[in-house]
Amino acid sequence: MPTSHPPQPLFLDDLAAGDVFESEPITLSAGQIVDFARQFDPQPFHLDDEAARGTFFQGLAASGWHTVALTMRLMVQSIPLDCGVIGAGAELAWPKAVRPGDSLRVTSTVLGITPSRSKPDRGIVEVQSVTSNQLGEVVQRLTSKLLVFRRAA
Amino acid sequence: MPTSHPPQPLFLDDLAAGDVFESEPITLSAGQIVDFARQFDPQPFHLDDEAARGTFFQGLAASGWHTVALTMRLMVQSIPLDCGVIGAGAELAWPKAVRPGDSLRVTSTVLGITPSRSKPDRGIVEVQSVTSNQLGEVVQRLTSKLLVFRRAA
Repeated sequence: MPTSHPPQPLFLDDLAAGDVFESEPITLSAGQIVDFARQFDPQPFHLDDEAARGTFFQGLAASGWHTVALTMRLMVQSIPLDCGVIGAGAELAWPKAVRPGDSLRVTSTVLGITPSRSKPDRGIVEVQSVTSNQLGEVVQRLTSKLLVFRRAA
Repeated sequence: MPTSHPPQPLFLDDLAAGDVFESEPITLSAGQIVDFARQFDPQPFHLDDEAARGTFFQGLAASGWHTVALTMRLMVQSIPLDCGVIGAGAELAWPKAVRPGDSLRVTSTVLGITPSRSKPDRGIVEVQSVTSNQLGEVVQRLTSKLLVFRRAA
């Protein structure tokens, strides 16, 4: 029986469309939301619950860049690529706000693999990572183009 | 003559394709790169210069999510939207690594405006934000769909 802890490092050769990777959950506090926002996204709806009441978000909400940064942390933990998780590009949508106390988890699915034409030791793996909260509501959809290397011959 | 400090808060009505917003520069230290990576992207090439030597990056490089988070900070400072900078979605590419000591600045250009069909008080503004280093090399291209409100009638 295969063990999943610690996972085997994976190479391009080991991946196929449809492969799924599930992360552990991570819980987000109001303090963490505000700390991130002070550094990177200092706007009222990410800094103060009272100030956020009168805005589009109607209460304190995490910056989408905080959500994607936490998603990356969960991807690094849950997708055991030998060369690491290296993104060349990404597409993002945030269909629902992330709130203090939310517990997020990420399910990543390999959509497709494109071997490099010029560099035979590598390829681009397209991965969709869906971040959901504790109610199963989707808070973020991230599609990444990951640079992945082949196992050395 | 219009003054640019402090800028006038802008509404959907005030924006047009081709409008350009330039940010101030921000400089990134090795310590900040490592701090961000410890929290959100703990991989050798973002954590330690020595460990990064043998990797794709050949030396310490900032997480792409750190670059985009700093880009957001510069966008919040340089795009004076009355309702704030609220992203519904985004596309990202990282053509070049960000290194310790790099000084980044962001030029944002309005690509197009799509009024909402169902909600006449708002629209989606597509903005391309190009993040460049001190040599003028592009380190990130970000295209954002921003939710922007009209001035109240």
